[in-house]
Amino acid sequence: MKIAVDAMGGDQAPETIVQGSVEAVRELNVSVILVGDERALHKELAKTGPAESQITVKHCTEAALMDESPIEVLRHKKDASVRVAFNLVKSGEADAAVSAGNSGATLAVATVVLGRMNGVERPGVASILPSVRGQLIIIDVGVNVDCKPSFLLQFGVMAHAYAQAILKIEEPRLALLSIGEEDSKGNLLVRQTHDLFKKSSLNFIGNIEGRDLYSDQADIVVCDGFVGNVVLKLSEGLTEIIAGMLEDELKHGPWPPVDVMILRKLLNRFHKKVDYAEFGGAPLLGVRGIGIISHGRSSPKAIKNAIRTAAEFVRQKMPDRLQAGLDESKELIISPN
Amino acid sequence: MKIAVDAMGGDQAPETIVQGSVEAVRELNVSVILVGDERALHKELAKTGPAESQITVKHCTEAALMDESPIEVLRHKKDASVRVAFNLVKSGEADAAVSAGNSGATLAVATVVLGRMNGVERPGVASILPSVRGQLIIIDVGVNVDCKPSFLLQFGVMAHAYAQAILKIEEPRLALLSIGEEDSKGNLLVRQTHDLFKKSSLNFIGNIEGRDLYSDQADIVVCDGFVGNVVLKLSEGLTEIIAGMLEDELKHGPWPPVDVMILRKLLNRFHKKVDYAEFGGAPLLGVRGIGIISHGRSSPKAIKNAIRTAAEFVRQKMPDRLQAGLDESKELIISPN
Repeated sequence: MKIAVDAMGGDQAPETIVQGSVEAVRELNVSVILVGDERALHKELAKTGPAESQITVKHCTEAALMDESPIEVLRHKKDASVRVAFNLVKSGEADAAVSAGNSGATLAVATVVLGRMNGVERPGVASILPSVRGQLIIIDVGVNVDCKPSFLLQFGVMAHAYAQAILKIEEPRLALLSIGEEDSKGNLLVRQTHDLFKKSSLNFIGNIEGRDLYSDQADIVVCDGFVGNVVLKLSEGLTEIIAGMLEDELKHGPWPPVDVMILRKLLNRFHKKVDYAEFGGAPLLGVRGIGIISHGRSSPKAIKNAIRTAAEFVRQKMPDRLQAGLDESKELIISPN
Repeated sequence: MKIAVDAMGGDQAPETIVQGSVEAVRELNVSVILVGDERALHKELAKTGPAESQITVKHCTEAALMDESPIEVLRHKKDASVRVAFNLVKSGEADAAVSAGNSGATLAVATVVLGRMNGVERPGVASILPSVRGQLIIIDVGVNVDCKPSFLLQFGVMAHAYAQAILKIEEPRLALLSIGEEDSKGNLLVRQTHDLFKKSSLNFIGNIEGRDLYSDQADIVVCDGFVGNVVLKLSEGLTEIIAGMLEDELKHGPWPPVDVMILRKLLNRFHKKVDYAEFGGAPLLGVRGIGIISHGRSSPKAIKNAIRTAAEFVRQKMPDRLQAGLDESKELIISPN
């Protein structure tokens, strides 16, 4: 199995990307094609110890910048590492692509290079988040900022197949993120989408409020990409701030040194539980192939876990499963407009 | 100074509302008119010790239910406690009203009874949240779920006056909640609103992302009520979940009893810092009078603090200040549609 990794995308690319890829081939049963500037990549590879035969390098001359518009990347950077990575998927030289770069550009490139699945108006990005007792899928998390109800329905149908195959949940509970549990609560988009989900054959449990997002009431939460991105980044930021407040308390509170040691153990255990690096990247759902987005600030461990998710998607033949789910809901998901 | 308190609104009304009102008249220089069923209120008052001369009771026969639609309350419950409370403001018998009841109904009643300020298309609800080093205002937090750019501009203009008068910030930094800092990032509403704020005379610092919301980069964050409500409830829920995880760690982790005592002290200090009850209710901005919404789950302390905020609004003559701010921005805030 070969995973193409965009080695030039990410805040600390190519260093952390190369490190994570090397960890992946050492621990997982995969090969990695690192896509990027070959001189830079060989230099980074040399730092990681003896050469790994499962790592190859595919040279390219450009890279998408983190804040570059997706349209610019599509038009003017035909040799961008992210594009070359998805070209490898398209040609069959790789089974999946992973990028920690500009996520808007990644989705745009994947959509243009691989094409959309039947029944999909907009591919979405699904993220897995830790919940009280397990995890949940939230879709969309940042690309589709202005949605129609049919987009949200398609996200839900795809996330259902994802949860079944990867999270191994037979009948995943699907909820719509809203501002009240009653059917009538929400903005126009949510109220219209609510009606669509009710008609679907999915295990739709209704609306869920922000305060219950992480309390294990739903396995899948659907929202537009603007709201999803706010939720994702707010959760990250707030968790860090709370951890920071507790750290401050340790440093400046009235604690004798022996207590500080005990408190630090508690904090370390907490950090581990909410470590986003543990969660393996966000899959693009709805393109004809496999693409995994990793956080721009990905650590080597996060990259390794994104590669693990990509491999799991390949093993589970996720594109076929997603298309089967879409085909089953065909009559409902085709937008009347 | 007289504050009308909707004694029948809130998850634990009238008990906690009466307790909080009694605490308020004992600690603050205010009188309270409790609005609700007089038998129930006198019964609760009897539990709180010697009668307080600054507390009077205004009888009424109805109450808005927590999940009742605002339109139903407006049409069919003319004698609802929340409506009677705002009638007292309208007639001048009270200087402000406080309610922990159905917030949609409260805003609708306040708008109908008091009317809108000049230049306001939709009154908004502003909430104060704790940030790393201080606090921030977020507006709107839950009533205006489908907004036009002009609504968000009006929210910003009013929050500016609020931050100056109540938070004592001379030039409050105002930001738009979005999914990237660049001007071009966001959904259609945010991108159009961005242009309006840029033309305004406010201290507009641009977009802010979810992850930076609490990191003290902005004093005022503007968003539509759907997003604001999700942010508010998610923040509350996540904070509780993290506190719960730490509690779990205490109970089930490998800690000797003496360590548990130390860790519990840390947790208690943390709880105190993020205690929403410390923050004094959410003012309605844009109605011709003063109304403060308190959380449905308000404790007596939260009710007392909402009454304190109401009193501060009266002292600062907030309606005049808000109208002055709106008048100054008149040319910009009148929607072209």
